[in-house]
Amino acid sequence: MMEKKKKLSIISFSGDFDKAIAVFTLASGAAAVNYEVNIFFTFWGLNLVKIRQNRAFLGKGILARIFGFLMGGRKNLPLSRFNFAGLSPLLMTFMTKKRNVATLPELIDSALALGVKLYACDMSMNILGLNKKDFIPEVREVIGVAKFLEYSQGGETIFI
Amino acid sequence: MMEKKKKLSIISFSGDFDKAIAVFTLASGAAAVNYEVNIFFTFWGLNLVKIRQNRAFLGKGILARIFGFLMGGRKNLPLSRFNFAGLSPLLMTFMTKKRNVATLPELIDSALALGVKLYACDMSMNILGLNKKDFIPEVREVIGVAKFLEYSQGGETIFI
Amino acid sequence: MMEKKKKLSIISFSGDFDKAIAVFTLASGAAAVNYEVNIFFTFWGLNLVKIRQNRAFLGKGILARIFGFLMGGRKNLPLSRFNFAGLSPLLMTFMTKKRNVATLPELIDSALALGVKLYACDMSMNILGLNKKDFIPEVREVIGVAKFLEYSQGGETIFI
Repeated sequence: MMEKKKKLSIISFSGDFDKAIAVFTLASGAAAVNYEVNIFFTFWGLNLVKIRQNRAFLGKGILARIFGFLMGGRKNLPLSRFNFAGLSPLLMTFMTKKRNVATLPELIDSALALGVKLYACDMSMNILGLNKKDFIPEVREVIGVAKFLEYSQGGETIFI
Repeated sequence: MMEKKKKLSIISFSGDFDKAIAVFTLASGAAAVNYEVNIFFTFWGLNLVKIRQNRAFLGKGILARIFGFLMGGRKNLPLSRFNFAGLSPLLMTFMTKKRNVATLPELIDSALALGVKLYACDMSMNILGLNKKDFIPEVREVIGVAKFLEYSQGGETIFI
Repeated sequence: MMEKKKKLSIISFSGDFDKAIAVFTLASGAAAVNYEVNIFFTFWGLNLVKIRQNRAFLGKGILARIFGFLMGGRKNLPLSRFNFAGLSPLLMTFMTKKRNVATLPELIDSALALGVKLYACDMSMNILGLNKKDFIPEVREVIGVAKFLEYSQGGETIFI
């Protein structure tokens, strides 16, 4: 009799750098001990898997462009807590490097290598004027809440 | 033999506009595929179900009044990320309208129509000096942690 | 036949004062109705169990010192929402006292008395340059994601 695989599902809502580290650390750690792991990127979390092409927002209307500017991309995520105080993600990347902790792109890569599955939220893409081609190709599917619940059902689900 | 109904429970802690959209989108999406959905409003999340009556705070002491002023009501929720930069919920409401995504009051209404149940947290109401009559009547019960756990037990629980 | 004990696991990521109250209120409430409760402190959440000794950060390099200064300790947690507006945790402590709601140190103490177990995250301690001796002794173990999942497995898990 096969044991059912344990599941961890993460709703990645925040685009903050420190929370992004939390998302991928949890995802990889769980995948490493044989959990099925699904990450559902929504709202600002879509930044974590967005290819930076601000140019791409031109022509989609002024408001989408303002959001595009504010959201930035994977290279310039703010730090949730002290951003207004002038601390940049560069500081944390520097610290993580210095202490031999993986940086965000490395965390994403190892999560993918361990089989973590990435999904994007259809509704927030609609609100923010994003398309599947705005994301890294490893985002395997654009889904809604019903599909997400189907994937997460029977496991632990956390919202970050 | 009846299958046990799947459950989703949401602790709505934040009063931010984008997170409020996340709360109600998840709630409605889950209720639409036949989940039992409970939302437990606590702290700033109580704003989402508060009837705006700042006047009501007069006479409850200066501190409660300060919180009342800061908390505002359902009509003027801040956006979690860029509020300090001057972006208002109006912008997002405008965008959601333009793109045919429901606005917050519509999301609340459809959540209710789908059978989502709303609860308010007794302890944070006590801290913030709020009473059941400060909320929309659809808030069916004022409960504490024990009762919330009883309602959420056996399902997925997320904190937003 | 023994019924399996219900479990609640909390990932305490935020160092904000209001979220700290949420963490310990949920933890104690659950422990009081006989749940097994594990709190896993990570990133800014480590502040909640840190002994304030900024002096201890001297000599660990300038970056760790900057983080040490920004993180503060258990006595000066910011309030997640309105900190920039000048509202301090003192205000909330004052309100909680006035209304006979427990303050943070009291919440921590009663959580411990009810059997809530505290853990610290190894990776974020590494990033932030912290050691086990920087925490209150009630933090029983420094663990990683795999161990956390083992402890939380089969229960409800929330990220605050």
